[in-house]
Amino acid sequence: MFSVTVRDRLMVAHSLSGEVFGPAQRLHGATFVVDATFRRGVLDEDGLVVDIGRAAAELRHVLAPMDYSNLDDDPGLAGTNTTTEVLAGIVADRLVEAVRAGALGEAARGLAGVAVTLRESDVAWASCERSL
Amino acid sequence: MFSVTVRDRLMVAHSLSGEVFGPAQRLHGATFVVDATFRRGVLDEDGLVVDIGRAAAELRHVLAPMDYSNLDDDPGLAGTNTTTEVLAGIVADRLVEAVRAGALGEAARGLAGVAVTLRESDVAWASCERSL
Amino acid sequence: MFSVTVRDRLMVAHSLSGEVFGPAQRLHGATFVVDATFRRGVLDEDGLVVDIGRAAAELRHVLAPMDYSNLDDDPGLAGTNTTTEVLAGIVADRLVEAVRAGALGEAARGLAGVAVTLRESDVAWASCERSL
Amino acid sequence: MFSVTVRDRLMVAHSLSGEVFGPAQRLHGATFVVDATFRRGVLDEDGLVVDIGRAAAELRHVLAPMDYSNLDDDPGLAGTNTTTEVLAGIVADRLVEAVRAGALGEAARGLAGVAVTLRESDVAWASCERSL
Amino acid sequence: MFSVTVRDRLMVAHSLSGEVFGPAQRLHGATFVVDATFRRGVLDEDGLVVDIGRAAAELRHVLAPMDYSNLDDDPGLAGTNTTTEVLAGIVADRLVEAVRAGALGEAARGLAGVAVTLRESDVAWASCERSL
Amino acid sequence: MFSVTVRDRLMVAHSLSGEVFGPAQRLHGATFVVDATFRRGVLDEDGLVVDIGRAAAELRHVLAPMDYSNLDDDPGLAGTNTTTEVLAGIVADRLVEAVRAGALGEAARGLAGVAVTLRESDVAWASCERSL
Repeated sequence: MFSVTVRDRLMVAHSLSGEVFGPAQRLHGATFVVDATFRRGVLDEDGLVVDIGRAAAELRHVLAPMDYSNLDDDPGLAGTNTTTEVLAGIVADRLVEAVRAGALGEAARGLAGVAVTLRESDVAWASCERSL
Repeated sequence: MFSVTVRDRLMVAHSLSGEVFGPAQRLHGATFVVDATFRRGVLDEDGLVVDIGRAAAELRHVLAPMDYSNLDDDPGLAGTNTTTEVLAGIVADRLVEAVRAGALGEAARGLAGVAVTLRESDVAWASCERSL
Repeated sequence: MFSVTVRDRLMVAHSLSGEVFGPAQRLHGATFVVDATFRRGVLDEDGLVVDIGRAAAELRHVLAPMDYSNLDDDPGLAGTNTTTEVLAGIVADRLVEAVRAGALGEAARGLAGVAVTLRESDVAWASCERSL
Repeated sequence: MFSVTVRDRLMVAHSLSGEVFGPAQRLHGATFVVDATFRRGVLDEDGLVVDIGRAAAELRHVLAPMDYSNLDDDPGLAGTNTTTEVLAGIVADRLVEAVRAGALGEAARGLAGVAVTLRESDVAWASCERSL
Repeated sequence: MFSVTVRDRLMVAHSLSGEVFGPAQRLHGATFVVDATFRRGVLDEDGLVVDIGRAAAELRHVLAPMDYSNLDDDPGLAGTNTTTEVLAGIVADRLVEAVRAGALGEAARGLAGVAVTLRESDVAWASCERSL
Repeated sequence: MFSVTVRDRLMVAHSLSGEVFGPAQRLHGATFVVDATFRRGVLDEDGLVVDIGRAAAELRHVLAPMDYSNLDDDPGLAGTNTTTEVLAGIVADRLVEAVRAGALGEAARGLAGVAVTLRESDVAWASCERSL
């Protein structure tokens, strides 16, 4: 099994609902360093898991609507607690859709899975893995 | 599959038995940077893998009896070679017990597994993964 | 010249004023990983630059009013562009005041300077150094 | 499941064939920071996944013929696009052969798998996992 | 004194002349992770050391002619041993020229210095600092 | 001003004297990741700050007597509190002596200073700088 990872960043404001979140119930913010990993069993004919340029562009395309925004104002996220793990799931699911829609090219249809890790600091991170 | 990781540290003295360990047979010490990863298939109703505050507190609770100690003096470890992989296993097993005993809350009973990585330096580390 | 560094984190929402900031003019957020470095020419009688526990507590004390907040709502920051370098300066200046007020202990009066680095992501950071 | 990781480095010149590679079609170079992870279900009688000294020596032995070289001049790689994922696969496959040949010792025959990650920069890396 | 750092990367082939370089006398390659730090005593009216977008663009502009190339073929480097420290000096000197030529904007004329660090691996790096 | 850094590691047991050290008064241990930085104003005729191989060998030579040991048993350290900053000072002073004694070669006599950083974990470190 092979994998390749591309990295980007997301800087958002948000608040979280529920006593479990303590001071994070207040409007605050986070930098998420986002690692998107693409996996496949056999490399394509160029010796690649995926065209890394297209993978990075697609990751940027997925992050752009959220970047430099207040997630509390996003109608698509209304009623959603935007925890680090929820956001990792959203990014992973959108990358899976992009692969299926051919946005990463024909060769990318051979991908076996996508995993997304969001690091909210040097000491805390969450991941979501999806099969294709 | 989702995961969340919490990090803590452990500073111990110890020695290792067996020629394979060379100079590490002498009493020396190590800082272990400890990453505990909790995994589950579906997030809980707060959008969490686990209450990260409780997870961090439980990791501290597991590490505390060993922290700032000489492991060679711990009766519970007599006859055990406290290699990095053995220590990763001990920490993982104790976290598994804590989850099963409800120490991380009711929602944490949905966890699928725990993985523990101990980094003994910038260039060497060991892990242990346990299913729940 | 000796130094010791303690690390903490700050998670804030904010917006920046001025065309130069592009999309960061919108309300967004950041995690700042904060490294506070204390310097002195000669160690104290315990062999320390500073009591690291007190230094970490004072750094937390300085960061607490800003942590998990929206800096745009802080009256003390009204009219201030809370760039990474401005925030580094604020934290450094407050640590200098704390040292002068004796908050880090009598031995800390021997400190020669304080430097604060705020890392807003894995690829961007700013620092401020102050002499004592 | 337990694992241990050893790290080494590889500094090579190479060029890549195919329009997808853009400027990397020109002769250029890379530092690859190489992490080799060895996995097994149960530790050996010394409490080890593998003798880390032998593992590191074997990794060095695998990397040495490529290190400080121009991969374009290596007859064994003629016709191979030496992408990061291809190189990860080559290193993993050679480590698997070494384990099977007994180069890591008798105890290493209990290994369940090998994974190799090559980091070509702080923001891009590729991996290959092989079962044993 | 304030500073801001921007990061980029450089992937080159090269060889070094002199017995002291051992195997690095052969044509090989390296990834250099490049950190360019800009310093000044007082922030500009936007609360900045430098417009980070222009700083990053100028760093890219300086690195571009060398990126994805074989430095041994660069006529401007003929007779120069392209060690990590020499390359750090070249990048620093070119950034100093750019600042003086106004390429980073009028506000950047208040800069006090530039420092460039090139990391050739996780365990080796070199820097060059220049005053303005 | 140019600099080059070499990295090594030190794994020791020790205890610290004084109430300020809390639980670290007990025998425990630490991994110190050691970065030794050599500085000079002008590069030598090979384009180097220092022969990095000799610098790394000398750093190892300085660390070797302490590595894999219990510092409490070292007669040369009797009565010394082996804090991270004290150890950084010891390593820096011994490197300064080595440079002066010619152990890093004739060209190294042009060095302007040495700085040593000891990282005891991912979140705590201390440094000592010495002029030559």
